Amino acid sequence: MRIGFIGLGGMGSGMAANLLKAGHEVRVWNRSREAVERLLAQGAVPLDEPHQAFAADVTISMLADDVATRAVLLDSGALAAAQPGAIHLSMATLSAAFVGELVEHHRQAGVDYIAAPVFGRTDMAAAGKLNIVVAGPPAAIAKVQPLLDAMGQKTWPLGEEPVRANVVKIAGNFMLASAIEAMGEASALVQGYGVEAGDMLEILTNTLFAAPAYKGYGAMIAERRFEPAAFKLTLGLKDVGLALSAGQARNVPLPFASVLRDNLLEAVAQGEGDLDWAALGGRAMKRAGQA
Amino acid sequence: MRIGFIGLGGMGSGMAANLLKAGHEVRVWNRSREAVERLLAQGAVPLDEPHQAFAADVTISMLADDVATRAVLLDSGALAAAQPGAIHLSMATLSAAFVGELVEHHRQAGVDYIAAPVFGRTDMAAAGKLNIVVAGPPAAIAKVQPLLDAMGQKTWPLGEEPVRANVVKIAGNFMLASAIEAMGEASALVQGYGVEAGDMLEILTNTLFAAPAYKGYGAMIAERRFEPAAFKLTLGLKDVGLALSAGQARNVPLPFASVLRDNLLEAVAQGEGDLDWAALGGRAMKRAGQA
Amino acid sequence: MRIGFIGLGGMGSGMAANLLKAGHEVRVWNRSREAVERLLAQGAVPLDEPHQAFAADVTISMLADDVATRAVLLDSGALAAAQPGAIHLSMATLSAAFVGELVEHHRQAGVDYIAAPVFGRTDMAAAGKLNIVVAGPPAAIAKVQPLLDAMGQKTWPLGEEPVRANVVKIAGNFMLASAIEAMGEASALVQGYGVEAGDMLEILTNTLFAAPAYKGYGAMIAERRFEPAAFKLTLGLKDVGLALSAGQARNVPLPFASVLRDNLLEAVAQGEGDLDWAALGGRAMKRAGQA
Amino acid sequence: MRIGFIGLGGMGSGMAANLLKAGHEVRVWNRSREAVERLLAQGAVPLDEPHQAFAADVTISMLADDVATRAVLLDSGALAAAQPGAIHLSMATLSAAFVGELVEHHRQAGVDYIAAPVFGRTDMAAAGKLNIVVAGPPAAIAKVQPLLDAMGQKTWPLGEEPVRANVVKIAGNFMLASAIEAMGEASALVQGYGVEAGDMLEILTNTLFAAPAYKGYGAMIAERRFEPAAFKLTLGLKDVGLALSAGQARNVPLPFASVLRDNLLEAVAQGEGDLDWAALGGRAMKRAGQA
Repeated sequence: MRIGFIGLGGMGSGMAANLLKAGHEVRVWNRSREAVERLLAQGAVPLDEPHQAFAADVTISMLADDVATRAVLLDSGALAAAQPGAIHLSMATLSAAFVGELVEHHRQAGVDYIAAPVFGRTDMAAAGKLNIVVAGPPAAIAKVQPLLDAMGQKTWPLGEEPVRANVVKIAGNFMLASAIEAMGEASALVQGYGVEAGDMLEILTNTLFAAPAYKGYGAMIAERRFEPAAFKLTLGLKDVGLALSAGQARNVPLPFASVLRDNLLEAVAQGEGDLDWAALGGRAMKRAGQA
Repeated sequence: MRIGFIGLGGMGSGMAANLLKAGHEVRVWNRSREAVERLLAQGAVPLDEPHQAFAADVTISMLADDVATRAVLLDSGALAAAQPGAIHLSMATLSAAFVGELVEHHRQAGVDYIAAPVFGRTDMAAAGKLNIVVAGPPAAIAKVQPLLDAMGQKTWPLGEEPVRANVVKIAGNFMLASAIEAMGEASALVQGYGVEAGDMLEILTNTLFAAPAYKGYGAMIAERRFEPAAFKLTLGLKDVGLALSAGQARNVPLPFASVLRDNLLEAVAQGEGDLDWAALGGRAMKRAGQA
Repeated sequence: MRIGFIGLGGMGSGMAANLLKAGHEVRVWNRSREAVERLLAQGAVPLDEPHQAFAADVTISMLADDVATRAVLLDSGALAAAQPGAIHLSMATLSAAFVGELVEHHRQAGVDYIAAPVFGRTDMAAAGKLNIVVAGPPAAIAKVQPLLDAMGQKTWPLGEEPVRANVVKIAGNFMLASAIEAMGEASALVQGYGVEAGDMLEILTNTLFAAPAYKGYGAMIAERRFEPAAFKLTLGLKDVGLALSAGQARNVPLPFASVLRDNLLEAVAQGEGDLDWAALGGRAMKRAGQA
Repeated sequence: MRIGFIGLGGMGSGMAANLLKAGHEVRVWNRSREAVERLLAQGAVPLDEPHQAFAADVTISMLADDVATRAVLLDSGALAAAQPGAIHLSMATLSAAFVGELVEHHRQAGVDYIAAPVFGRTDMAAAGKLNIVVAGPPAAIAKVQPLLDAMGQKTWPLGEEPVRANVVKIAGNFMLASAIEAMGEASALVQGYGVEAGDMLEILTNTLFAAPAYKGYGAMIAERRFEPAAFKLTLGLKDVGLALSAGQARNVPLPFASVLRDNLLEAVAQGEGDLDWAALGGRAMKRAGQA
């Protein structure tokens, strides 16, 4: 298939590479040129402007957030350049409100909009092992399924309304943040009694909580290893904000998300914004006066 | 080994049965007689008074809480009847403060006190598959290891100070409650956008949160299936209280535990105290006005 | 002075009337015509378009929120019609972020921007008894001081940077909401022991808390009298949101504001959005299962 | 009247002195002797043992907390020495649960128990200006009314059930703590925008919040003046704990109290336990990284 790919960050680069490996023609655009260069050897075709990515069977976007997506797709006029009948596979983590706006813009442009945010970090993206939650027009999804298969280990369908995929992504990140905070508080608690956080987390992440999320973040919290950041704390704050605003729009109180927001803000105020968001787990220990 | 076993509730009955299967002589006491009767066929010897359970190589207690343990072991004079050099393997979920008190009583009585609370519900107890966290005098632990092996799938050592095992147990239950609340809030969030909680939880509990705790409670929340109660919500409130009081004694703020306590109290006030504590997850949906 | 006045809601009508009483020439614009009609008998001059209000010595705006202010002042082109050297006295409760944006627009237009939000409800506005917090260019403030004196009982200066007046207004409303919540929780607590909320509040609002805010809201909570709404709960939710977003922009965690937001959202979800925001105080009793 | 007075701390000394001034015979007991010596010149009669204070028409106790009250009145056997028909005027801030226990002990001893906790600090106690909330047997209250009049500026009756007076006292202290936290958060918010906390609090405590509680604590927060402590932060933590436990016993969630507890614990963990509890207001600024 002929694919236009917009956004070659840590995630997008791996995803585009897997599409190339699967034999697709992939034309790429990125704000900075270096990421583009790295993909040329693998067969990517460079684009000068984002609107060129819409001259394709399927356009994939994987930008940082609402702001970047608005700038590149809407304000630049890129979407307006799309052919009616085109498909836009939007894989970034976007707010529920902005997805509503995007859906309307696409409807007017006659472009099918598929929301397909992903679970997994850059290593999973590079390995084609992402979990992809997808919602949009069924025929369009059927058409892009080979692309989703090339990028992910599994696709999880959520119906026709695109925003549904986004809120599941947002809910998942909220649950991750909650798990980090819970491990942090539990660590502060047992350390108050002389138990190493690592000893407690070793037990729990091999029994009740024997899940990837707990094992990975648990080890970081136990070792206070918050650098280098695979996912910055400021991005975590942004994502918890997505949960809160999505909840507010539907009158859904989220008391855990409120606590997370306050603790993440405190971390940023204390200079920890560039650490991995696992550092949220370290705040509980600092509040308790533990080293 | 000759064992005195005090407390044949859902957990204790299964544990005592496994000790009998392993060939030990088990003499049992329980407040109500029925539980005793059920074990006789498996070879248990009934006792009339709790103090008789201390005429043994090892006395095991598995009572409901601080209050029951205080009544049966201290107020009744049972511990005072123990032989110096005896071992008490205390497996209940007790408060950090009360364990401190118990340790002192045992020191005065010349009895080794081992704290060995367990992770696992009644089915795990019956199957001998408990995870046991243990702390106490090393020689005493070595002596009871065959008993722990008969009752559990694994023993997790936490050093010599008994209270350490208890706070790890308390921390684990706090993390469970946090997981339930997080799933409940995430469910309310996605339902605000027309996504079934079950569809969201199916995805997350098979990927990032593919852990026993999430799968089990996630299914209950998705189906709003809170009866029959395997672990009552009022017990969950008690356990979150153990975390808060243990934290307070060491100046450890636990903001998630505070939210949990408030939400559990609200559930009790709304008549849900006898439901399974997974009903905590349902509160988030009710607060949002969802059916 | 020749005044253009935009926004004749419950507050603006009273304020404009007091300017007329003080002998000023007041030309008024409002989205709906009825409010304009009511002021004509008092000598107001009706305007057809908001931009006409900027053909004046001082333009006063008192619109509902960011959205209304943006629509009427910016999107309509009204501000662009202002003469360089004009003064805009902006008295609405606006977000810190939007005020920053407005300041920049006014700088470009060569118009002095004074922020002067007010404390007081419609009866205080009608009586000219508002408390006005003001920040902006000193010379401009000196020029409008007679107008502030006509509308308020006292002006509280906060320096040259307009946003400072807005955040003090936002902080004050946050403190009001906190007082309502605190009275609600205290009421639920004592009612759990058979004490009427009114009996408790009678004591406290005549001693430690003998302040207007406590007496007024205390009486409403004691009597569960939340209709008619002098200030709707949904507006309270908006204002608490202003505190949270202003805090987030400066990395200031506000845990009380987070609780307020969750409880106000819950109230809206339960159908109480159109009640007076004193109904926030009633939520605590409902959560406790009290009638 | 012949009065036995137990507990001559900062509060009790002033109260006993006012009883002496009013012409009563006051026999006093205190754990440390110095406080007793100071009252002798004013005509007090020293007692060697607390039980002697029960050989009186009315016994007044004003001890630090549950623990001190239990030790001096119950464990020492003092109450057991009381004559049937005696009156005990219990003025300390005690927990709801312990008051229930005390009422039962007094019933068995045939002694009338009146709960009469007070609002006001040591200066108010010395000046006879306390506000006293009272509940107990009407005839007994009528008899001690002259004593209440000598110690307080006003007595607020709350019926026959003693615990009612205690929960109103507990609710009042919870509302004070909430006011301190709200002022602290509001201060952190405006300081994020360059407004001095003192400038904001000057406005609000002279308008909406023109109440003694806000003026006094507001000034301390504005000046970060938390020493010397008129009421230690650790005592504030204890009192918030009284609210939480009283609420828990009646299934009343108190989310503000939960936040207060966490923030007070954090303050203690950070070494601020001996500061005045107004320091709670300073935590919000510290969390935001403000000096």
